This record gives sequence, structure tokens and C-alpha cells, in this order.
Amino acid sequence: MTIAVPVEPILSEESAPTTRCRILATAERSFREIGYQKTTVADIAKTLKMSPANVYRFFDSKKAINEAVVERLIGEVEALISAIADAPGSRAADRLTAVIEALHRDTHERCSAFPRMHEMIEAAMSESWDVCRHHVDRIGAVFERIVVDGVARGEFETDDPAGAARCLHTAIARYSHPLLVSQYPDAPVPQLDVMTAFLLRSLRPVGAR
Amino acid sequence: MTIAVPVEPILSEESAPTTRCRILATAERSFREIGYQKTTVADIAKTLKMSPANVYRFFDSKKAINEAVVERLIGEVEALISAIADAPGSRAADRLTAVIEALHRDTHERCSAFPRMHEMIEAAMSESWDVCRHHVDRIGAVFERIVVDGVARGEFETDDPAGAARCLHTAIARYSHPLLVSQYPDAPVPQLDVMTAFLLRSLRPVGAR
Repeated sequence: MTIAVPVEPILSEESAPTTRCRILATAERSFREIGYQKTTVADIAKTLKMSPANVYRFFDSKKAINEAVVERLIGEVEALISAIADAPGSRAADRLTAVIEALHRDTHERCSAFPRMHEMIEAAMSESWDVCRHHVDRIGAVFERIVVDGVARGEFETDDPAGAARCLHTAIARYSHPLLVSQYPDAPVPQLDVMTAFLLRSLRPVGAR
Repeated sequence: MTIAVPVEPILSEESAPTTRCRILATAERSFREIGYQKTTVADIAKTLKMSPANVYRFFDSKKAINEAVVERLIGEVEALISAIADAPGSRAADRLTAVIEALHRDTHERCSAFPRMHEMIEAAMSESWDVCRHHVDRIGAVFERIVVDGVARGEFETDDPAGAARCLHTAIARYSHPLLVSQYPDAPVPQLDVMTAFLLRSLRPVGAR
């Protein structure tokens, strides 16, 4: 006698990326709506009508899923600010202003719409520090690209474009750090455009207003 | 027959401030060592060999005790930076640098020595927002005093000393905000002196290096 047991099909090479994407999309939705801590790999598998073992074929832990979700999200914002940085024709100061606004808006909108998102981000910050560190480095590199271009155009003046870029990025923590934006939205801080103008004055050439 | 029961003495007007201080000192030590969440009013009373009811004569809740502890701590750092701001003879830039260093050192040392302290500060930030807000305002006022003095001496140039002061204070959040200092001590940020020099360039008069 043979017994029919449900067997999950072995995924072909072609469909593996699709399964991976579906796992990530489901995990992200659950992290946003239920929260990172309350989401289990079993929940994600159940939503996808697959076994937890199948999820584990793609990601060896919830932490690994979170890293991939966070990397995707930060990849989006990195692509956005990179496009702003490379926009032809505009002043470097305008591009820096737009990048800073984009970083702020990205964090702020996500935290407002999905307050539980910062659980996921806090988890990444404590469990997957390298992911966050590389993100900070890549954002710093975008700032640096604009500062270097501003110096080449005579719009900015600095002996240390890389240092200035890191200072700019660090100085806007109050507006772009997920923890501060999500937890203290009512802190008494200057308007972002006032802050950006203040910071950009630091780069103005000698003799310029 | 009379039964001897221990009776707490009614405190005279003279000793009330002392009792208040002892409650605060004991609460602060417990918040530092055990943590805010795990400390109860009963624990504080027990350490002081008094009844919880007596503690409640001075503070109507643990939140009220925390507010007083936090106010005392921030009063100390405010007095320190105020003394730096008013130091005669030194350049405004040097005084701003010293104030920023003092704010960073204060937060950093407290978080390193007593990692549980940020529980207390987080509690104040979520339960007693006004205390924190006034602290931010008073620090901003100290920054402003130095900026105004720097403008008067021709050392700085800005149309809006109050706005510049708030920007300076907000821009150093990464180095002085209890949450960021305690939770992400290894974040890849510029050295504080590099950041301060960058920020002060924003205030330099036209034509000055």
C-alpha cells in the first residue's frame, strides 16, 4: 500500500529567486504590520503556504530574512539619493539639500505609516551591524560625490571633501536616524531647511555669502 | 496596656529638604545600578528605612522621583556648560568647542559607567517630555549666548544667532543624545573635534578662513 503525502516540489533554479522574493515581501509586510519580534518564520511560511523548512532553504534564520529585507529597503533609498546626486545641471548645494530631504522623508514616512518598522530596524542595528555600517558608508559616499563635484565647480571649498561629507551626514542624524525620528517626533529642533542651510554655509568658499 | 509601635517622627520643616535629598540620592543610585524599571518606591523606602507612605509625602509617584533625579542631573551639566560659556577672555569658538565636548563627555561617561541609566532617561523622555524639552531649550540658550558674544567680537557672522545655536546643538545629537550614545557607541562617525570644526566654519565671517 502506498500513502499519498503532500510533497513540496523541488524548486527549479528558475523559480528560486521568485520564492526568495516572495519570502521577503511577506516578511516585510509582517514586520510592518505585526512587528519584527512577533513575526515568526512559521508565520511567514504559513502565509506563503509552504513549510518552515522550505523558508530555511533560502534563509537560515529570521535574522537573515531581516538583513535581506533591510538591505532591500536601504537599497531603494540609496538608489534614490544616488540618482539625485548624479542629476545633471543642478547646483551641488541643491542636490545636497534634495538628498538630505529624501533621507529625512524616507525615514519619517516609514515611521509614520508603520510605527512597528523601527523594531525591525533596531533589530538590524543590534544583530546585523555590518549591514547598517555599510549603509552609512554608502550614504557618506553619495554625500562625498556631491561635495567633490561642488568643489570642482567652485561652489564649495573644503580641504577634506570626505570628512565634510561624513560631517554633513552625521549632523542630520536628528532628521534621518530611525530611532530619533520614530521615538521623538516632537523634539524641538530647527526646520530641516534651516539646518541644511546652516550646514552648507560651512562649505562656502572664502569671500562668498 | 499600651503597645509600643514604631512611629515615624513628623518631619520638621528643617529636615524636609534633607529627606527629599536622601530619597533622590537613593533613587538615583538604584536607577543607576538596578535600573529604572526594576526599582520600586517600596525599594527606595526600604533602603532609607522609612515607609513608602513617607516617600509619597515628598513625591506622588516614581515618575515624579525620576523627574527630580533627571532635573538634578541635567541641572549639573547645565551649570557646567553655563560656566564654560561665561569664562572670561577665551574665544567664542573655544568656548563652543568646550561646551560641545562637555555635553558629549557627560552623556558618554554616564552611559559607559552606568549603562542602565538610559532606562531612566528614556522614561523621562517618554513620561516627562516637558523636563527634557526645557533642558533642550536651556542648552540652546547657552549656545546662543556664546554665538551672540562671538558675533559681537567679530569672531562669528550670522543673521540669526538663535537659529544658528539651535542648529549647532541639533547637529551634535550623534554625540550627545543619550539614546544614540548609549545604544550605538560604535557608529562610524567623525571624531567630535572634526565635527565641531566643520560646524564652526558655518559661523565664520565672510572673508575669513
